[in-house]
Amino acid sequence: MNDTNAPFSEQEKDGFYRAIHERRDVRSHFLPDPIPSPVLSRLLDAAHHAPSVGFMQPWDFMLIDSLDVRRQVHGIFLRENEKAAANYSGERFRTYRSLKLEGILESPMNLCITCDRTRGGDHVLGRNSIIDMDLFSTCLAVQNFWLAARAEGIGVGWVSILDQDELAEVLGLPESVYPLAYLCLGYVSEFLDRPELAGKGWRQRLPLTDLVHSNGWGRPLNDPALLQALDEVAETHS
Amino acid sequence: MNDTNAPFSEQEKDGFYRAIHERRDVRSHFLPDPIPSPVLSRLLDAAHHAPSVGFMQPWDFMLIDSLDVRRQVHGIFLRENEKAAANYSGERFRTYRSLKLEGILESPMNLCITCDRTRGGDHVLGRNSIIDMDLFSTCLAVQNFWLAARAEGIGVGWVSILDQDELAEVLGLPESVYPLAYLCLGYVSEFLDRPELAGKGWRQRLPLTDLVHSNGWGRPLNDPALLQALDEVAETHS
Repeated sequence: MNDTNAPFSEQEKDGFYRAIHERRDVRSHFLPDPIPSPVLSRLLDAAHHAPSVGFMQPWDFMLIDSLDVRRQVHGIFLRENEKAAANYSGERFRTYRSLKLEGILESPMNLCITCDRTRGGDHVLGRNSIIDMDLFSTCLAVQNFWLAARAEGIGVGWVSILDQDELAEVLGLPESVYPLAYLCLGYVSEFLDRPELAGKGWRQRLPLTDLVHSNGWGRPLNDPALLQALDEVAETHS
Repeated sequence: MNDTNAPFSEQEKDGFYRAIHERRDVRSHFLPDPIPSPVLSRLLDAAHHAPSVGFMQPWDFMLIDSLDVRRQVHGIFLRENEKAAANYSGERFRTYRSLKLEGILESPMNLCITCDRTRGGDHVLGRNSIIDMDLFSTCLAVQNFWLAARAEGIGVGWVSILDQDELAEVLGLPESVYPLAYLCLGYVSEFLDRPELAGKGWRQRLPLTDLVHSNGWGRPLNDPALLQALDEVAETHS
């Protein structure tokens, strides 16, 4: 066991940052191999250790291996994606159509992480001013899951081109439960060395220094050491 | 450099999971020591490497060390917290009042992570069906930051008891920019070995197995190996 208050060793930090920088949004490259129970349990446990407003833990985990359920969800995706594609024209339309945007049927397992908006009763500590803190907390669980999956060599893709009402109906969710994230998971033939949308020329990573402000919107950093450090770290990771 | 597709070593995985399990929502225990620029840069870079819908990268990072700005934000907190406290009575009210819920002035640095809802133009890939995917993406950046901070020995606390309109005004945010997460950061005298709200008897961690469903809401897992693995992993981490 680690002493909770001992500093992380360089090796521990390297392992952590490796998950951060090598995590990808996976749509292709899924292998059919099943995820062993101990591995899947570690991923779910990592998600369950996300922070949540008032320790609300509003999440549930819907594991979906049924091909019938996945076909229904895939049908929702196809209908929504037709609508989405209609927003583009010309070269952009052709690029959009060339992109693979989900792996619902090829991945061996889907997972819907939901948010129960009534969990913890009427007054959840810290959720008085910002009612959507429960949704935000559930997102933090999604990211814990996503990173843990990468550390275990498992790819994850978030399918956001779905009608949430139709998805809720397929999964039989109670009215108070929102299907926040629909994920495809599985071992992969490879993790790309940079995000697929960058590789395909859809959109590039923004310069980090452009996104950092000092004490208010648009106020530049007046700290040369920090500016230099930001430039240096940004150069290390594409 | 790591080969992107090599499995994580046990040491790398241990470092990763240590950040997941030892991360805390810190309100007390902040030390005044400044965060060195290279460390702060690594945290911001980790946040910037979160996944985002359509590679939108809707986040900006407002670093706040000005005591004047922090005092204004603290004023917003005090007013919102009065309203929140009025939801409780009796013993629960007394417990609520005994909890420290922010470290705005004691921590050496505050950080507001915002979401620019117009970034990437009118049609962001993958944001056609669920318009809030930009907010959800920004949450993933928050969690990357939070975990990276833990790996660097830095505590983070999310202050959610704030009026977002007032906060936006203090920070001079444009109308399209939402102040998603207001964080306090700094080195700490200690990381607690379990969440403060659990330690103080406010609310306990839910059993993981109660939260996992199979192919639809409320359908139990029929997989004894997975059930056993979930029990085992849950016993390891409080």
